[in-house]
Amino acid sequence: MIKAGIIGATGYAGAELVRLLLGHKEVEIKWYGSRSYVDQAYASVYQNMFQLVDEKCLDDNMEAMADQVDVIFTATPQGLCASLVNENILNKVKIIDLSADFRIKDVNVYEKWYGIEHKAPQYIEEAVYGLCEVNREKIKQARIIANPGCYPTCSFLSIYPCVKEGLIDPNTIIIDAKSGTSGAGRGAKVDNLFCEVNENIKAYGVAGHRHTPEIEEQLSYAAGEPVLINFTPHLVPMQRGILVTAYASLKKDVTYEEVKAVYDKYYDKEYFVRVLNKDVCPQTRWVEGSNFVDVNFKIDPRTKRIIMMGAMDNLVKGAAGQAVQNMNLLFGLDEKTGLQMAPLFP
Amino acid sequence: MIKAGIIGATGYAGAELVRLLLGHKEVEIKWYGSRSYVDQAYASVYQNMFQLVDEKCLDDNMEAMADQVDVIFTATPQGLCASLVNENILNKVKIIDLSADFRIKDVNVYEKWYGIEHKAPQYIEEAVYGLCEVNREKIKQARIIANPGCYPTCSFLSIYPCVKEGLIDPNTIIIDAKSGTSGAGRGAKVDNLFCEVNENIKAYGVAGHRHTPEIEEQLSYAAGEPVLINFTPHLVPMQRGILVTAYASLKKDVTYEEVKAVYDKYYDKEYFVRVLNKDVCPQTRWVEGSNFVDVNFKIDPRTKRIIMMGAMDNLVKGAAGQAVQNMNLLFGLDEKTGLQMAPLFP
Amino acid sequence: MIKAGIIGATGYAGAELVRLLLGHKEVEIKWYGSRSYVDQAYASVYQNMFQLVDEKCLDDNMEAMADQVDVIFTATPQGLCASLVNENILNKVKIIDLSADFRIKDVNVYEKWYGIEHKAPQYIEEAVYGLCEVNREKIKQARIIANPGCYPTCSFLSIYPCVKEGLIDPNTIIIDAKSGTSGAGRGAKVDNLFCEVNENIKAYGVAGHRHTPEIEEQLSYAAGEPVLINFTPHLVPMQRGILVTAYASLKKDVTYEEVKAVYDKYYDKEYFVRVLNKDVCPQTRWVEGSNFVDVNFKIDPRTKRIIMMGAMDNLVKGAAGQAVQNMNLLFGLDEKTGLQMAPLFP
Amino acid sequence: MIKAGIIGATGYAGAELVRLLLGHKEVEIKWYGSRSYVDQAYASVYQNMFQLVDEKCLDDNMEAMADQVDVIFTATPQGLCASLVNENILNKVKIIDLSADFRIKDVNVYEKWYGIEHKAPQYIEEAVYGLCEVNREKIKQARIIANPGCYPTCSFLSIYPCVKEGLIDPNTIIIDAKSGTSGAGRGAKVDNLFCEVNENIKAYGVAGHRHTPEIEEQLSYAAGEPVLINFTPHLVPMQRGILVTAYASLKKDVTYEEVKAVYDKYYDKEYFVRVLNKDVCPQTRWVEGSNFVDVNFKIDPRTKRIIMMGAMDNLVKGAAGQAVQNMNLLFGLDEKTGLQMAPLFP
Repeated sequence: MIKAGIIGATGYAGAELVRLLLGHKEVEIKWYGSRSYVDQAYASVYQNMFQLVDEKCLDDNMEAMADQVDVIFTATPQGLCASLVNENILNKVKIIDLSADFRIKDVNVYEKWYGIEHKAPQYIEEAVYGLCEVNREKIKQARIIANPGCYPTCSFLSIYPCVKEGLIDPNTIIIDAKSGTSGAGRGAKVDNLFCEVNENIKAYGVAGHRHTPEIEEQLSYAAGEPVLINFTPHLVPMQRGILVTAYASLKKDVTYEEVKAVYDKYYDKEYFVRVLNKDVCPQTRWVEGSNFVDVNFKIDPRTKRIIMMGAMDNLVKGAAGQAVQNMNLLFGLDEKTGLQMAPLFP
Repeated sequence: MIKAGIIGATGYAGAELVRLLLGHKEVEIKWYGSRSYVDQAYASVYQNMFQLVDEKCLDDNMEAMADQVDVIFTATPQGLCASLVNENILNKVKIIDLSADFRIKDVNVYEKWYGIEHKAPQYIEEAVYGLCEVNREKIKQARIIANPGCYPTCSFLSIYPCVKEGLIDPNTIIIDAKSGTSGAGRGAKVDNLFCEVNENIKAYGVAGHRHTPEIEEQLSYAAGEPVLINFTPHLVPMQRGILVTAYASLKKDVTYEEVKAVYDKYYDKEYFVRVLNKDVCPQTRWVEGSNFVDVNFKIDPRTKRIIMMGAMDNLVKGAAGQAVQNMNLLFGLDEKTGLQMAPLFP
Repeated sequence: MIKAGIIGATGYAGAELVRLLLGHKEVEIKWYGSRSYVDQAYASVYQNMFQLVDEKCLDDNMEAMADQVDVIFTATPQGLCASLVNENILNKVKIIDLSADFRIKDVNVYEKWYGIEHKAPQYIEEAVYGLCEVNREKIKQARIIANPGCYPTCSFLSIYPCVKEGLIDPNTIIIDAKSGTSGAGRGAKVDNLFCEVNENIKAYGVAGHRHTPEIEEQLSYAAGEPVLINFTPHLVPMQRGILVTAYASLKKDVTYEEVKAVYDKYYDKEYFVRVLNKDVCPQTRWVEGSNFVDVNFKIDPRTKRIIMMGAMDNLVKGAAGQAVQNMNLLFGLDEKTGLQMAPLFP
Repeated sequence: MIKAGIIGATGYAGAELVRLLLGHKEVEIKWYGSRSYVDQAYASVYQNMFQLVDEKCLDDNMEAMADQVDVIFTATPQGLCASLVNENILNKVKIIDLSADFRIKDVNVYEKWYGIEHKAPQYIEEAVYGLCEVNREKIKQARIIANPGCYPTCSFLSIYPCVKEGLIDPNTIIIDAKSGTSGAGRGAKVDNLFCEVNENIKAYGVAGHRHTPEIEEQLSYAAGEPVLINFTPHLVPMQRGILVTAYASLKKDVTYEEVKAVYDKYYDKEYFVRVLNKDVCPQTRWVEGSNFVDVNFKIDPRTKRIIMMGAMDNLVKGAAGQAVQNMNLLFGLDEKTGLQMAPLFP
């Protein structure tokens, strides 16, 4: 059994990790780390876990945790993981960081967009960006996994084949993304109250959202050249789900079949990426609670653009599910272990 | 492997059966029966099943199905199962009927409340009311399981210990129930449109809902005398979930501890019924996607009444999950097989 | 023009007062009182008021306000109004208090249920309970109006005719109420986050909610004897609306027509109380944004009970609308002035 | 008093017209036209109108209606208005058509995108596109008003100043729009059921939505050259509201102040278009129930694009409200009459 510890187990992503790991037959959760609920029964914070989790919340002491577990998940705001990790810890456990601390290779870019000093720049280089479909082999060898952001995962996987195969001009990419509210976390803020979110849609972080450089970096690797994009996230009155609608100019005339072949080339063997049938648009409903990303595209011959779409559960493939997928790779398990539940509908 | 057939696989309860049976390691679905979608790919009707279910929908021919499967689930409106079942079929397969056809022992009561003629009254007596927590042993021997209604399951389990132990006057019972919209089915009706359901709550079927006699019959068995109740369902702007708030007059003064002991007596060993801690009210959120029923109670010393509460996922414990639980009993499996997923939150 | 001041203008009830008073041709808002947003533009807090309200928020200085306005609305938590009001103020302005401070005549009951000391008990006796349909004439002469609570308004108006005319046994009354989330206010609490409220229903304050004694007091006046009830509120995933489903035992056999005549006797001339047609259940959708209360009833001959139902917008008739109705009475205006907008649907 | 008739009064847009005209002091509704509910009380179809509208639904006989009213609103699917209108009718009444029949000047474009034959092409030329902020003077003289589509209204007004002043390259315009479900109408379709819409977001009509040529035509007039765009609508789990997020490449470097001046130039005197303060993003919540369009923009210096945003209530400014605004112009009233209600929040 793999012994797991979670720092930030009482946030939404942490709670989803708990749900997934409880259903994972090779894992045992040994440490429910929290800052706000230390010494309280975990199931009193998340009543759904009543009689399923008997443990109390512990603190976020990564050193102590490293002595008791094989893998540590950090489901916390940016900055915390980098401030805690050290060589002693890394010699004992694998770290899967769900925050942004090790996603961006250029520390200056990180510090500029996140507005904080990076406390462990020495580990940025070795950390592996945990997008399993792209970096599978590197992940297996890593000590630190930078679990991708929710928007970047869905955005990148929707666009990747077109960029990689040079079908589109990467500097024309515009990503219009829509997310459920769980992405905003469980903090008590007026903006996230039911009466503020319900019956509403709004853009936020326009031309300045922190996931922009992360998406650009990954797209740049795929394109083989620096890529600048527009990325606009929106808040949607739903709990879970991210939908990406991305636009780009085609470099030349292509048929549906040609583009479909490109998507199939990259995703045919990927269990968690489903290229939908022609003219079927991804919907967040169809992936809820699962680790799937549904992608598809539509060519507009009038404007010579392609519209690339993707749908994903932000808490699963966009956070906890992808973290488990990374864990499976790190520990030599079948990548799908514990992640094959069908999406919940309705 | 148990081979299963589903009549009504494209309704919401049928689709939930598909989801649960896909995750059940001892079952294989051999027949996706539908009336509206014959010959269409099941995954084109429920896109969440894309690449998980490759089969097409077949018709609802119970005779033909009985030659290919071990168990038939009928997730259809009342009347259909009774009109199809016969001795030849029952000699080959087990029937788990999610409709009301075999729930009520008095055929006159059935015909009065449902307004249709019963087509197979000869099987009413032998059919077993599939409330596992109460009729476990009988279920194991049955040929026909009358899978309980959603409201009756949640109502009865919330009240049962108090009635059985004589704590309350059964003829003072008032059940005020609230359900998500999936209980209304997938039929295309104006009343169930998003814009009609959202931002609204209403009572319906006041003093006349068909689940009333079903609840009364089961409570009468528990009380050992005829019971008449008030039952009022409400439609709530959510997808899944039933909440029951039931009221009754206490026969004598009792303490919290005394009542708690009564609930524990009946549910301590029941995995799927969770008696919550003192003063914790059941919420539908905490059971979503799972087979749990959360129950609790509150004594009001001012009015000498007790308020009994229960929360449940109407599509799982209220329909498909309970059907799988019954199937497990029928086939000698651990009752929990395929049903141990933690509730999804948020 | 009536000059109005609002203490608590940045809560949901206060904001609804602003909306209604802006549409009231005889009123001018002179003071937008707030505690959290002093000196900020009101329209920066409630962006819907952009270009409609140019004023900044002021503090909650009731003394200063009394020099500039004719009527003060206090839309604040309990305790504040009682702590601010004094004879000097009452000599200058009318007070319409939307909190509970002056609703309950027995100060001991108030202090027990609210858990705070009453700071102005000398005004309890003279304050008038502002349920216009019942206390219209007294309201016109009052200095202090105790604007009724949301649940009490809807509960009382649904039940009142039956109690007043002695059709039901008042001590059998059970009120099961359901409210949208705006009733919980705009405070930043985890419990009111979108992801906690959405796709959920729960009871709260079971056998202990503070609106219980308020309802009991008013029902006692109507019954002419002390009344004890059960009152259970529930939180529904919607913004606005309260639905009341109340149960009571009939004292004798009555027909639909007899009960209808009783409801008509009390409400035929009441513009804001709509007795619906036979078998039409009240729904919160049909009153949203308006000052209407829709009521109806259903007799259950099996149990000899009557089910009484009411639906109302908690922010309008349950708070700000009723406050404006009271203001109209206080200032000799037509009671309907500024309140005749049709309900918004969908 | 203006006498008004409505064809399609029982759809969502028609019902909103009823709501607005009831609050309009210069109008009397004389004919509630319907196809599905002839002879039924209007208030039995829309219970919110109980005791406010006593009339029954009549049929959609435009000839008969023209004898009794001054203005006819057609809130019906495309094709119906064109099939009914004739010279005799136009000699008696003004027509405000909320369908697409007279919006597009090139009948071939109409017939291609809508897939039906145009039955009254002789009136296309004289019909005036009823976007009041742009065509105010022409509207006053018209016999037929082509009331703009919901998406085109919000899209065009968000972009118009930038195109008109030549700040952007019009052929780089990409419009990503999001709409509440009332835009899909009140037809009983599985796709619009609560359980299908809730907790979901999806694109639809990708690269083929019928509002595309309407937007392109209007943008072409503003640009003085033919414009081709990408337009992608999405369905959001809310009732009302459209949000537009539009992207385009700037022709040259501009400052915030320069662009703000351009927006102010066009909208400073427009009551219903609110240019928000810097960095405030439009949200559908802030305009709900009102005739406002909130617009704003953000310059992205990294990509040299501008993001233009707009929010609007699709049933008001996107349909019924704009129709009333047009009616006011047609009959010489203040354009704002009956339309000055503040947005409803929450």
